[in-house]
Amino acid sequence: MNRNIKLTIAYDGTDFCGWQRQENNRSVQEEIEKALEKIHSHPVNLAGSGRTDSGVHAAGQAANFFTDIGSMEAGRFVPALNSLLPRDVRILDACEEQDNFHARFSARMRTYRYQFVFCCGATNPAMPHESRYHLPLHRYPRIGILNAYGRLLSGETDCTIFAGAGDNALTEDKSKNRYIYRAYFYIDRNTLVFEICANAFLRNMVRSVAGTFLHYEETLTPPEKLREIIASGERSLAGPTLPPRGLFLWKVEY
Amino acid sequence: MNRNIKLTIAYDGTDFCGWQRQENNRSVQEEIEKALEKIHSHPVNLAGSGRTDSGVHAAGQAANFFTDIGSMEAGRFVPALNSLLPRDVRILDACEEQDNFHARFSARMRTYRYQFVFCCGATNPAMPHESRYHLPLHRYPRIGILNAYGRLLSGETDCTIFAGAGDNALTEDKSKNRYIYRAYFYIDRNTLVFEICANAFLRNMVRSVAGTFLHYEETLTPPEKLREIIASGERSLAGPTLPPRGLFLWKVEY
Repeated sequence: MNRNIKLTIAYDGTDFCGWQRQENNRSVQEEIEKALEKIHSHPVNLAGSGRTDSGVHAAGQAANFFTDIGSMEAGRFVPALNSLLPRDVRILDACEEQDNFHARFSARMRTYRYQFVFCCGATNPAMPHESRYHLPLHRYPRIGILNAYGRLLSGETDCTIFAGAGDNALTEDKSKNRYIYRAYFYIDRNTLVFEICANAFLRNMVRSVAGTFLHYEETLTPPEKLREIIASGERSLAGPTLPPRGLFLWKVEY
Repeated sequence: MNRNIKLTIAYDGTDFCGWQRQENNRSVQEEIEKALEKIHSHPVNLAGSGRTDSGVHAAGQAANFFTDIGSMEAGRFVPALNSLLPRDVRILDACEEQDNFHARFSARMRTYRYQFVFCCGATNPAMPHESRYHLPLHRYPRIGILNAYGRLLSGETDCTIFAGAGDNALTEDKSKNRYIYRAYFYIDRNTLVFEICANAFLRNMVRSVAGTFLHYEETLTPPEKLREIIASGERSLAGPTLPPRGLFLWKVEY
Protein backbone atom coordinates (compact mmCIF):
# COMPACT_ATOMS: atom_id res chain seq x y z
CA MET A 1 0.00 0.00 0.00
CA ASN A 2 1.32 3.44 -0.89
CA ARG A 3 2.45 5.61 1.99
CA ASN A 4 1.63 9.31 2.22
CA ILE A 5 4.79 11.37 2.86
CA LYS A 6 4.75 14.99 3.99
CA LEU A 7 7.76 17.16 3.17
CA THR A 8 8.81 20.43 4.81
CA ILE A 9 10.68 22.52 2.28
CA ALA A 10 12.80 25.69 2.23
CA TYR A 11 13.80 27.53 -0.90
CA ASP A 12 15.35 30.70 -2.19
CA GLY A 13 12.67 31.95 -4.59
CA THR A 14 14.92 34.38 -6.48
CA ASP A 15 15.62 32.13 -9.44
CA PHE A 16 12.23 30.37 -9.58
CA CYS A 17 9.01 31.25 -11.38
CA GLY A 18 7.35 30.24 -8.10
CA TRP A 19 6.20 27.01 -6.50
CA GLN A 20 3.96 25.75 -9.26
CA ARG A 21 5.13 23.86 -12.31
CA GLN A 22 5.02 25.99 -15.48
CA GLU A 23 5.94 25.29 -19.07
CA ASN A 24 9.49 26.55 -19.86
CA ASN A 25 10.02 27.97 -16.40
CA ARG A 26 12.01 26.77 -13.42
CA SER A 27 9.61 25.94 -10.58
CA VAL A 28 10.24 24.45 -7.14
CA GLN A 29 7.55 21.82 -7.65
CA GLU A 30 9.18 20.59 -10.83
CA GLU A 31 12.66 20.40 -9.26
CA ILE A 32 11.36 18.23 -6.42
CA GLU A 33 9.17 16.11 -8.72
CA LYS A 34 12.23 15.46 -10.92
CA ALA A 35 14.18 14.31 -7.85
CA LEU A 36 11.26 12.12 -6.73
CA GLU A 37 11.08 10.59 -10.20
CA LYS A 38 14.77 9.66 -10.01
CA ILE A 39 14.24 7.93 -6.66
CA HIS A 40 11.06 6.12 -7.76
CA SER A 41 11.98 5.48 -11.42
CA HIS A 42 8.51 6.75 -12.40
CA PRO A 43 6.76 10.14 -12.20
CA VAL A 44 5.49 11.17 -8.76
CA ASN A 45 2.96 13.93 -8.13
CA LEU A 46 3.77 16.43 -5.41
CA ALA A 47 0.93 18.50 -3.92
CA GLY A 48 1.98 21.78 -2.27
CA SER A 49 0.16 23.61 0.53
CA GLY A 50 -0.29 26.48 -1.91
CA ARG A 51 1.51 28.39 -4.60
CA THR A 52 4.14 30.97 -3.88
CA ASP A 53 4.77 33.68 -6.48
CA SER A 54 7.96 34.15 -8.42
CA GLY A 55 10.66 35.51 -6.12
CA VAL A 56 8.90 34.58 -2.87
CA HIS A 57 11.07 32.46 -0.55
CA ALA A 58 10.01 29.67 1.77
CA ALA A 59 11.34 28.62 5.15
CA GLY A 60 8.56 26.07 5.76
CA GLN A 61 6.56 25.20 2.67
CA ALA A 62 4.72 21.85 3.01
CA ALA A 63 3.86 19.28 0.35
CA ASN A 64 2.91 15.63 0.15
CA PHE A 65 3.28 12.69 -2.22
CA PHE A 66 2.49 8.98 -2.22
CA THR A 67 5.37 6.56 -2.38
CA ASP A 68 5.33 2.89 -3.38
CA ILE A 69 8.78 2.36 -1.85
CA GLY A 70 7.93 0.23 1.15
CA SER A 71 11.40 -0.34 2.49
CA MET A 72 12.47 3.26 3.09
CA GLU A 73 11.98 5.04 6.37
CA ALA A 74 10.24 8.40 5.72
CA GLY A 75 13.08 10.45 7.22
CA ARG A 76 15.50 9.01 4.70
CA PHE A 77 13.80 11.01 1.94
CA VAL A 78 15.52 14.10 3.40
CA PRO A 79 19.12 13.23 2.49
CA ALA A 80 18.01 11.30 -0.61
CA LEU A 81 16.19 14.29 -2.07
CA ASN A 82 18.74 16.88 -0.93
CA SER A 83 21.52 15.01 -2.71
CA LEU A 84 19.54 15.36 -5.97
CA LEU A 85 18.23 18.90 -5.53
CA PRO A 86 19.90 22.21 -6.47
CA ARG A 87 21.20 24.20 -3.53
CA ASP A 88 18.38 26.74 -3.59
CA VAL A 89 15.88 24.06 -2.53
CA ARG A 90 16.33 22.07 0.69
CA ILE A 91 14.11 19.41 2.22
CA LEU A 92 14.01 20.09 5.96
CA ASP A 93 11.85 17.21 7.08
CA ALA A 94 9.93 14.17 5.80
CA CYS A 95 7.37 12.22 7.81
CA GLU A 96 4.57 9.76 7.21
CA GLU A 97 0.97 11.00 7.40
CA GLN A 98 -2.49 9.43 7.31
CA ASP A 99 -3.84 8.46 3.89
CA ASN A 100 -6.29 11.35 3.89
CA PHE A 101 -3.65 14.01 4.60
CA HIS A 102 -3.40 16.62 1.84
CA ALA A 103 -0.83 19.43 2.06
CA ARG A 104 -3.31 21.96 0.70
CA PHE A 105 -6.71 20.88 1.98
CA SER A 106 -5.56 19.74 5.41
CA ALA A 107 -3.68 22.96 6.19
CA ARG A 108 -5.20 25.00 9.03
CA MET A 109 -2.85 28.00 9.12
CA ARG A 110 -0.28 29.57 6.88
CA THR A 111 2.23 32.09 8.22
CA TYR A 112 4.15 34.54 6.05
CA ARG A 113 7.01 36.77 7.10
CA TYR A 114 8.02 39.87 5.21
CA GLN A 115 11.45 41.28 5.98
CA PHE A 116 12.33 44.94 5.43
CA VAL A 117 15.74 46.42 6.00
CA PHE A 118 16.18 50.05 7.00
CA CYS A 119 18.45 51.94 4.65
CA CYS A 120 17.60 55.55 5.16
CA GLY A 121 18.97 58.28 2.98
CA ALA A 122 18.97 58.26 -0.79
CA THR A 123 22.68 57.44 -0.98
CA ASN A 124 22.48 54.60 1.53
CA PRO A 125 21.59 51.45 -0.39
CA ALA A 126 20.88 48.05 1.14
CA MET A 127 23.79 45.59 1.21
CA PRO A 128 23.58 42.90 -1.47
CA HIS A 129 23.52 40.18 1.20
CA GLU A 130 20.59 41.91 2.87
CA SER A 131 18.60 42.93 -0.18
CA ARG A 132 18.25 39.37 -1.44
CA TYR A 133 16.04 38.51 1.53
CA HIS A 134 14.83 41.94 2.61
CA LEU A 135 12.98 44.75 0.94
CA PRO A 136 14.74 48.10 1.45
CA LEU A 137 12.76 50.66 3.43
CA HIS A 138 13.86 54.25 3.08
CA ARG A 139 12.18 55.62 6.19
CA TYR A 140 11.25 54.51 9.70
CA PRO A 141 7.49 53.96 9.88
CA ARG A 142 5.59 54.23 13.17
CA ILE A 143 5.19 50.63 14.28
CA GLY A 144 2.33 51.50 16.63
CA ILE A 145 0.14 52.64 13.76
CA LEU A 146 1.08 49.67 11.59
CA ASN A 147 0.07 47.35 14.43
CA ALA A 148 -3.22 49.21 14.93
CA TYR A 149 -3.87 48.49 11.24
CA GLY A 150 -2.88 44.85 11.80
CA ARG A 151 -5.50 44.46 14.53
CA LEU A 152 -8.19 45.58 12.06
CA LEU A 153 -7.67 42.34 10.17
CA SER A 154 -8.13 39.99 13.13
CA GLY A 155 -10.79 37.34 12.67
CA GLU A 156 -13.00 36.74 9.65
CA THR A 157 -12.15 39.57 7.24
CA ASP A 158 -13.26 40.52 3.76
CA CYS A 159 -9.93 40.76 1.95
CA THR A 160 -11.30 41.90 -1.41
CA ILE A 161 -9.17 45.06 -1.52
CA PHE A 162 -6.01 42.96 -1.06
CA ALA A 163 -6.76 40.55 -3.93
CA GLY A 164 -4.30 40.64 -6.81
CA ALA A 165 -5.67 41.05 -10.33
CA GLY A 166 -4.69 37.46 -11.13
CA ASP A 167 -6.57 36.18 -8.13
CA ASN A 168 -9.72 37.92 -9.19
CA ALA A 169 -9.69 36.40 -12.66
CA LEU A 170 -9.35 32.92 -11.22
CA THR A 171 -11.91 33.14 -8.44
CA GLU A 172 -14.36 35.80 -9.56
CA ASP A 173 -17.36 34.52 -7.68
CA LYS A 174 -15.62 32.98 -4.69
CA SER A 175 -15.58 34.47 -1.22
CA LYS A 176 -12.70 36.80 -0.49
CA ASN A 177 -13.17 36.29 3.24
CA ARG A 178 -10.22 34.87 5.13
CA TYR A 179 -9.76 34.12 8.79
CA ILE A 180 -6.75 36.08 10.00
CA TYR A 181 -5.18 34.91 13.25
CA ARG A 182 -2.64 37.69 13.57
CA ALA A 183 -0.94 40.42 11.58
CA TYR A 184 1.76 42.45 13.30
CA PHE A 185 5.05 44.24 12.83
CA TYR A 186 8.15 44.10 14.99
CA ILE A 187 11.72 45.33 14.86
CA ASP A 188 14.51 42.77 14.91
CA ARG A 189 17.83 44.65 14.91
CA ASN A 190 17.96 46.58 11.62
CA THR A 191 15.06 44.59 10.20
CA LEU A 192 11.36 45.34 10.24
CA VAL A 193 9.37 42.10 10.17
CA PHE A 194 5.71 41.82 9.20
CA GLU A 195 4.19 38.52 10.23
CA ILE A 196 0.74 37.46 9.14
CA CYS A 197 -1.02 34.20 9.86
CA ALA A 198 -4.34 33.15 8.30
CA ASN A 199 -6.28 30.06 7.35
CA ALA A 200 -5.50 30.87 3.70
CA PHE A 201 -4.41 33.77 1.52
CA LEU A 202 -5.55 35.32 -1.74
CA ARG A 203 -2.99 35.65 -4.48
CA ASN A 204 -0.47 38.48 -3.81
CA MET A 205 -2.40 39.23 -0.63
CA VAL A 206 0.54 39.58 1.78
CA ARG A 207 2.37 41.90 -0.61
CA SER A 208 -0.77 44.00 -0.96
CA VAL A 209 -1.52 44.14 2.79
CA ALA A 210 2.05 45.27 3.56
CA GLY A 211 2.04 47.81 0.74
CA THR A 212 -1.34 49.17 1.83
CA PHE A 213 -0.35 49.46 5.49
CA LEU A 214 2.93 51.24 4.68
CA HIS A 215 1.15 53.54 2.24
CA TYR A 216 -1.53 54.65 4.70
CA GLU A 217 0.91 54.91 7.59
CA GLU A 218 3.01 57.29 5.49
CA THR A 219 -0.04 59.48 4.81
CA LEU A 220 -0.97 59.47 8.53
CA THR A 221 -4.31 57.74 7.98
CA PRO A 222 -6.01 56.86 11.29
CA PRO A 223 -6.95 53.19 11.81
CA GLU A 224 -10.69 53.99 11.82
CA LYS A 225 -10.35 55.40 8.32
CA LEU A 226 -8.42 52.35 7.12
CA ARG A 227 -11.17 50.14 8.58
CA GLU A 228 -13.67 51.86 6.27
CA ILE A 229 -11.34 51.51 3.30
CA ILE A 230 -10.97 47.77 3.87
CA ALA A 231 -14.73 47.37 4.38
CA SER A 232 -15.44 49.25 1.13
CA GLY A 233 -13.99 46.38 -0.91
CA GLU A 234 -12.77 49.03 -3.35
CA ARG A 235 -9.55 47.61 -4.71
CA SER A 236 -8.40 50.89 -6.21
CA LEU A 237 -7.98 52.12 -2.62
CA ALA A 238 -5.35 49.47 -1.81
CA GLY A 239 -1.72 50.59 -1.67
CA PRO A 240 0.95 49.20 -3.99
CA THR A 241 1.62 45.46 -4.15
CA LEU A 242 5.22 45.25 -2.94
CA PRO A 243 7.93 43.21 -4.71
CA PRO A 244 8.29 39.56 -3.62
CA ARG A 245 11.88 39.99 -2.42
CA GLY A 246 11.83 39.83 1.38
CA LEU A 247 8.69 37.66 1.59
CA PHE A 248 8.88 34.15 3.07
CA LEU A 249 6.22 31.48 3.38
CA TRP A 250 7.33 30.85 6.94
CA LYS A 251 5.29 27.81 8.02
CA VAL A 252 2.17 25.79 7.36
CA GLU A 253 0.31 24.29 10.29
CA TYR A 254 -2.01 21.26 10.24
CA MET B 1 43.74 68.43 -11.06
CA ASN B 2 42.44 64.92 -10.63
CA ARG B 3 40.71 64.14 -7.36
CA ASN B 4 41.28 60.93 -5.43
CA ILE B 5 37.96 59.22 -4.59
CA LYS B 6 37.61 56.44 -2.05
CA LEU B 7 34.70 54.02 -2.40
CA THR B 8 33.21 51.72 0.22
CA ILE B 9 31.74 48.69 -1.48
CA ALA B 10 29.52 45.74 -0.58
CA TYR B 11 29.04 42.69 -2.76
CA ASP B 12 27.60 39.23 -2.86
CA GLY B 13 30.62 37.18 -3.95
CA THR B 14 28.65 34.10 -5.01
CA ASP B 15 28.62 34.84 -8.73
CA PHE B 16 32.05 36.49 -8.95
CA CYS B 17 35.52 35.05 -9.57
CA GLY B 18 36.57 37.40 -6.77
CA TRP B 19 37.56 41.05 -6.50
CA GLN B 20 40.32 41.10 -9.07
CA ARG B 21 39.83 41.48 -12.79
CA GLN B 22 40.42 38.22 -14.69
CA GLU B 23 40.22 37.31 -18.34
CA ASN B 24 36.84 35.71 -19.17
CA ASN B 25 35.60 35.86 -15.61
CA ARG B 26 33.15 38.12 -13.85
CA SER B 27 35.02 40.17 -11.22
CA VAL B 28 33.84 42.96 -8.93
CA GLN B 29 36.70 45.21 -10.00
CA GLU B 30 35.74 44.92 -13.64
CA GLU B 31 32.05 45.62 -12.98
CA ILE B 32 32.90 48.85 -11.14
CA GLU B 33 35.57 49.87 -13.67
CA LYS B 34 33.01 49.39 -16.46
CA ALA B 35 30.59 51.67 -14.60
CA LEU B 36 33.35 54.25 -13.99
CA GLU B 37 34.23 54.16 -17.68
CA LYS B 38 30.63 54.95 -18.59
CA ILE B 39 30.60 57.96 -16.27
CA HIS B 40 34.02 59.24 -17.41
CA SER B 41 33.83 58.25 -21.10
CA HIS B 42 37.35 56.80 -20.78
CA PRO B 43 38.87 53.87 -18.84
CA VAL B 44 39.44 54.44 -15.11
CA ASN B 45 41.66 52.30 -12.91
CA LEU B 46 40.24 51.17 -9.59
CA ALA B 47 42.64 50.03 -6.83
CA GLY B 48 41.16 47.74 -4.19
CA SER B 49 42.35 47.33 -0.60
CA GLY B 50 43.10 43.72 -1.44
CA ARG B 51 41.76 40.77 -3.35
CA THR B 52 38.91 38.66 -2.12
CA ASP B 53 38.63 35.08 -3.39
CA SER B 54 35.85 33.73 -5.51
CA GLY B 55 32.72 33.37 -3.42
CA VAL B 56 33.87 35.67 -0.61
CA HIS B 57 31.43 38.48 0.14
CA ALA B 58 32.15 42.03 1.22
CA ALA B 59 30.28 44.38 3.53
CA GLY B 60 33.01 47.04 3.51
CA GLN B 61 35.61 46.59 0.78
CA ALA B 62 37.49 49.82 0.01
CA ALA B 63 38.95 51.03 -3.29
CA ASN B 64 40.10 54.29 -4.83
CA PHE B 65 40.32 55.93 -8.25
CA PHE B 66 41.28 59.31 -9.68
CA THR B 67 38.59 61.33 -11.39
CA ASP B 68 38.98 64.23 -13.82
CA ILE B 69 35.36 65.24 -13.35
CA GLY B 70 35.71 68.46 -11.43
CA SER B 71 32.08 69.41 -11.15
CA MET B 72 30.76 66.39 -9.30
CA GLU B 73 30.55 66.20 -5.53
CA ALA B 74 32.22 62.94 -4.35
CA GLY B 75 29.05 61.63 -2.68
CA ARG B 76 27.22 61.77 -5.99
CA PHE B 77 29.29 58.86 -7.27
CA VAL B 78 27.20 56.62 -4.97
CA PRO B 79 23.87 56.88 -6.83
CA ALA B 80 25.63 57.36 -10.20
CA LEU B 81 27.55 54.08 -9.86
CA ASN B 82 24.71 52.14 -8.24
CA SER B 83 22.40 52.97 -11.13
CA LEU B 84 24.93 51.33 -13.48
CA LEU B 85 25.97 48.36 -11.36
CA PRO B 86 24.34 44.91 -11.11
CA ARG B 87 22.41 44.31 -7.92
CA ASP B 88 25.08 42.10 -6.35
CA VAL B 89 27.46 45.07 -6.08
CA ARG B 90 26.52 48.22 -4.14
CA ILE B 91 28.53 51.35 -3.50
CA LEU B 92 27.90 52.33 0.12
CA ASP B 93 29.97 55.50 0.29
CA ALA B 94 32.22 57.76 -1.76
CA CYS B 95 34.45 60.47 -0.34
CA GLU B 96 37.45 62.54 -1.36
CA GLU B 97 40.90 61.62 -0.02
CA GLN B 98 44.39 63.14 -0.10
CA ASP B 99 46.40 62.58 -3.29
CA ASN B 100 48.67 60.06 -1.60
CA PHE B 101 45.82 57.87 -0.33
CA HIS B 102 45.95 54.34 -1.72
CA ALA B 103 43.24 51.80 -0.83
CA ARG B 104 45.80 49.02 -0.48
CA PHE B 105 48.96 50.66 0.83
CA SER B 106 47.26 53.12 3.18
CA ALA B 107 45.10 50.46 4.87
CA ARG B 108 45.97 49.87 8.55
CA MET B 109 43.51 47.13 9.45
CA ARG B 110 41.30 44.66 7.66
CA THR B 111 38.48 42.87 9.43
CA TYR B 112 36.88 39.66 8.19
CA ARG B 113 33.77 37.99 9.52
CA TYR B 114 32.98 34.36 8.96
CA GLN B 115 29.41 33.27 9.61
CA PHE B 116 28.46 29.71 10.49
CA VAL B 117 24.94 28.49 10.98
CA PHE B 118 24.16 25.61 13.33
CA CYS B 119 22.28 22.82 11.62
CA CYS B 120 22.89 19.83 13.78
CA GLY B 121 21.83 16.38 12.74
CA ALA B 122 22.60 14.80 9.39
CA THR B 123 19.04 15.28 8.16
CA ASN B 124 18.86 18.92 9.20
CA PRO B 125 20.25 20.99 6.34
CA ALA B 126 20.79 24.74 6.39
CA MET B 127 18.04 26.85 4.86
CA PRO B 128 18.87 28.17 1.38
CA HIS B 129 18.53 31.76 2.60
CA GLU B 130 21.02 31.02 5.38
CA SER B 131 23.51 28.89 3.48
CA ARG B 132 24.25 31.58 0.91
CA TYR B 133 25.87 33.72 3.62
CA HIS B 134 26.69 31.12 6.26
CA LEU B 135 28.69 27.94 6.32
CA PRO B 136 26.71 25.06 7.85
CA LEU B 137 28.14 23.67 11.08
CA HIS B 138 26.96 20.22 12.07
CA ARG B 139 27.94 20.38 15.72
CA TYR B 140 28.27 22.91 18.55
CA PRO B 141 31.95 23.63 19.18
CA ARG B 142 33.20 24.84 22.57
CA ILE B 143 33.53 28.59 22.09
CA GLY B 144 35.87 28.90 25.10
CA ILE B 145 38.51 26.72 23.46
CA LEU B 146 38.13 28.45 20.11
CA ASN B 147 38.70 31.79 21.82
CA ALA B 148 41.74 30.44 23.67
CA TYR B 149 43.11 29.55 20.22
CA GLY B 150 42.21 33.03 18.99
CA ARG B 151 44.30 34.64 21.73
CA LEU B 152 47.35 32.68 20.54
CA LEU B 153 47.34 34.78 17.37
CA SER B 154 47.36 38.18 19.08
CA GLY B 155 50.19 40.47 18.07
CA GLU B 156 52.93 39.80 15.56
CA THR B 157 52.41 36.19 14.46
CA ASP B 158 54.10 33.89 11.98
CA CYS B 159 51.16 32.80 9.85
CA THR B 160 53.06 30.36 7.63
CA ILE B 161 50.85 27.40 8.47
CA PHE B 162 47.76 29.38 7.39
CA ALA B 163 49.16 30.35 3.97
CA GLY B 164 47.25 28.94 1.00
CA ALA B 165 49.22 27.08 -1.67
CA GLY B 166 48.59 29.93 -4.10
CA ASP B 167 49.99 32.46 -1.68
CA ASN B 168 53.19 30.55 -1.25
CA ALA B 169 53.88 30.35 -4.96
CA LEU B 170 53.46 34.09 -5.28
CA THR B 171 55.48 35.25 -2.30
CA GLU B 172 57.91 32.43 -1.61
CA ASP B 173 60.56 34.52 0.11
CA LYS B 174 58.38 37.12 1.74
CA SER B 175 57.61 37.30 5.44
CA LYS B 176 54.51 35.41 6.53
CA ASN B 177 54.33 37.49 9.70
CA ARG B 178 51.16 39.45 10.22
CA TYR B 179 50.06 41.68 13.07
CA ILE B 180 46.78 40.33 14.40
CA TYR B 181 44.69 42.72 16.47
CA ARG B 182 42.00 40.24 17.46
CA ALA B 183 40.56 36.88 16.54
CA TYR B 184 37.49 35.69 18.41
CA PHE B 185 34.26 33.75 18.12
CA TYR B 186 30.84 34.68 19.39
CA ILE B 187 27.29 33.39 19.11
CA ASP B 188 24.67 35.63 17.54
CA ARG B 189 21.32 33.82 17.72
CA ASN B 190 21.69 30.67 15.59
CA THR B 191 24.91 31.96 14.04
CA LEU B 192 28.50 31.42 15.12
CA VAL B 193 30.63 34.39 14.05
CA PHE B 194 34.41 34.36 13.76
CA GLU B 195 35.87 37.84 13.58
CA ILE B 196 39.52 38.46 12.81
CA CYS B 197 41.28 41.77 12.40
CA ALA B 198 44.87 42.17 11.18
CA ASN B 199 47.10 44.63 9.39
CA ALA B 200 46.98 42.32 6.37
CA PHE B 201 46.17 38.73 5.46
CA LEU B 202 47.82 35.99 3.43
CA ARG B 203 45.80 34.42 0.67
CA ASN B 204 43.07 32.07 1.99
CA MET B 205 44.32 32.81 5.49
CA VAL B 206 40.97 33.42 7.21
CA ARG B 207 39.51 30.25 5.74
CA SER B 208 42.56 28.30 6.92
CA VAL B 209 42.58 29.80 10.44
CA ALA B 210 38.88 28.98 10.93
CA GLY B 211 39.30 25.48 9.50
CA THR B 212 42.34 24.84 11.69
CA PHE B 213 40.66 26.09 14.87
CA LEU B 214 37.51 24.03 14.29
CA HIS B 215 39.59 20.98 13.43
CA TYR B 216 41.72 21.12 16.60
CA GLU B 217 38.78 22.02 18.80
CA GLU B 218 36.99 18.90 17.56
CA THR B 219 39.98 16.74 18.46
CA LEU B 220 40.21 18.35 21.93
CA THR B 221 43.67 19.81 21.35
CA PRO B 222 44.77 22.08 24.23
CA PRO B 223 45.77 25.65 23.31
CA GLU B 224 49.42 25.05 24.37
CA LYS B 225 49.65 22.28 21.81
CA LEU B 226 48.14 24.46 19.09
CA ARG B 227 50.67 27.18 19.97
CA GLU B 228 53.47 24.71 19.11
CA ILE B 229 51.76 23.68 15.88
CA ILE B 230 51.47 27.31 14.73
CA ALA B 231 55.09 28.01 15.73
CA SER B 232 56.28 24.95 13.80
CA GLY B 233 55.38 26.62 10.50
CA GLU B 234 54.51 23.14 9.23
CA ARG B 235 51.67 23.75 6.81
CA SER B 236 50.66 20.09 6.66
CA LEU B 237 49.51 20.51 10.27
CA ALA B 238 46.91 23.16 9.36
CA GLY B 239 43.28 22.07 9.26
CA PRO B 240 41.16 22.26 6.12
CA THR B 241 40.72 25.54 4.25
CA LEU B 242 36.98 26.13 4.57
CA PRO B 243 34.75 27.11 1.62
CA PRO B 244 34.36 30.86 0.97
CA ARG B 245 30.60 30.85 1.53
CA GLY B 246 29.97 32.62 4.84
CA LEU B 247 33.09 34.78 4.69
CA PHE B 248 32.81 38.58 4.48
CA LEU B 249 35.49 41.23 4.14
CA TRP B 250 33.78 43.27 6.81
CA LYS B 251 35.71 46.54 6.85
CA VAL B 252 39.01 48.20 6.01
CA GLU B 253 40.37 50.88 8.31
CA TYR B 254 42.81 53.66 7.42
